[in-house]
Amino acid sequence: MPNIKLTIQYEGTNYIGWQKQLKGDSIQGEIERAIKCITGEEVNLIASGRTDSGVHALGQVANFLTNSFIPPDKFKYALNTKLPEDISIIESEEVPCDFHARYDAIGKKYMYLIYNNPIRNPIYRRFVYHVPYPLNYKNMKEGAKYVIGTHDFSAFMASNSNVRSTVRTISNAYLSKKNELILFKIEGNGFLYNMVRIIVGTLIEIGQGKLKPCDISHIIESKNRNLAGPTAPPQGLFLERVYY
Amino acid sequence: MPNIKLTIQYEGTNYIGWQKQLKGDSIQGEIERAIKCITGEEVNLIASGRTDSGVHALGQVANFLTNSFIPPDKFKYALNTKLPEDISIIESEEVPCDFHARYDAIGKKYMYLIYNNPIRNPIYRRFVYHVPYPLNYKNMKEGAKYVIGTHDFSAFMASNSNVRSTVRTISNAYLSKKNELILFKIEGNGFLYNMVRIIVGTLIEIGQGKLKPCDISHIIESKNRNLAGPTAPPQGLFLERVYY
Repeated sequence: MPNIKLTIQYEGTNYIGWQKQLKGDSIQGEIERAIKCITGEEVNLIASGRTDSGVHALGQVANFLTNSFIPPDKFKYALNTKLPEDISIIESEEVPCDFHARYDAIGKKYMYLIYNNPIRNPIYRRFVYHVPYPLNYKNMKEGAKYVIGTHDFSAFMASNSNVRSTVRTISNAYLSKKNELILFKIEGNGFLYNMVRIIVGTLIEIGQGKLKPCDISHIIESKNRNLAGPTAPPQGLFLERVYY
Repeated sequence: MPNIKLTIQYEGTNYIGWQKQLKGDSIQGEIERAIKCITGEEVNLIASGRTDSGVHALGQVANFLTNSFIPPDKFKYALNTKLPEDISIIESEEVPCDFHARYDAIGKKYMYLIYNNPIRNPIYRRFVYHVPYPLNYKNMKEGAKYVIGTHDFSAFMASNSNVRSTVRTISNAYLSKKNELILFKIEGNGFLYNMVRIIVGTLIEIGQGKLKPCDISHIIESKNRNLAGPTAPPQGLFLERVYY
């Protein structure tokens, strides 16, 4: 039974998130519906991981098993005709039957966009966190470095999360700037629930002068969620790439 | 009576265009409503020109007369609190009482975005014209040069338009490329109705090989709308700047 891997882009604004739930439209639900439309099959679409409501993806990965005779590379075109405009399959290919989008992922890359200007921008609004007060970019850039490495990131995990291990390895984390747009990119072998958004919320507190760059280290050591910054809002976050 | 000049950004997707009409939400209508909200006055907001439904602005300019004592540079903050998120006043200032946003405009700059990829992009979708077939970028770039100069642009004007003169001077028109994104920028002393979108539609026909770059000259000379390409869709178009 062919195993199809999809690479997916979406704007998360109008969805409750990746995962199907009792109420509301989900990305998973929309794609499973499109697959049913073209193959007649009810599949279980497995993603690399969930994304929250409002979070976007440039390269989410998911897989499903099918008996359909549609050539694997044609799935993307067929599915796109059945999907809403805010979801797009950019790649479809056959993978070995034991490929599992979640278990086989060895790393992920996220991007977070901050628009730092006293006045909001209507063109960017769905894709950035608008921070109207001045931010010390240099200090934020310095702070991001302290995230890199293998650490217990409990302090940067939404409370009430339940995972076996809270240790993750961040291989890269850096800021860059284009006019009023601050880009944060982070790469690692895995991320705890809300981890990127809490790191961003903490970097913003550094940018405001509420925290020093090196405080990131102390917060990591403390394993105390209350010492980290608030969870930055979802619309600035993009799942950029999943590594296998 | 102070004359206030506003510089305005908006996403045009959800509007019938700049101008108030009997039915539907307009940018002008929204801003006049916000002005009434903060000053109590019913003003007549004069823009540099209309933009069509779905067309965006990074720097539309408009002016209005007011008796309000709100400091001119504070208008932007006050108005933004009353405006929907897809409209933003980025600058407000007092100008001489005879300043007229339309009559005093000496030039405009537009940008048009084409996304040239077989697969659509859900993040860009509100701001680009998605062209899924291959385009010869080099030829389009060459074609754009033929637009520059002082010409009778009748062939690049929506039919049924009624203007005194169809002669306009285009001081600059060029294409650039960032991955699959093609940016067209055009600057001139004025533009006929749908002129930028018809030029883009014609450049796309050049990109498809239906026309040669130098055909632009023949089409201009012909003054025949039917020889130019189709009107490119509104969502790729941005009014970038108005010159005074």
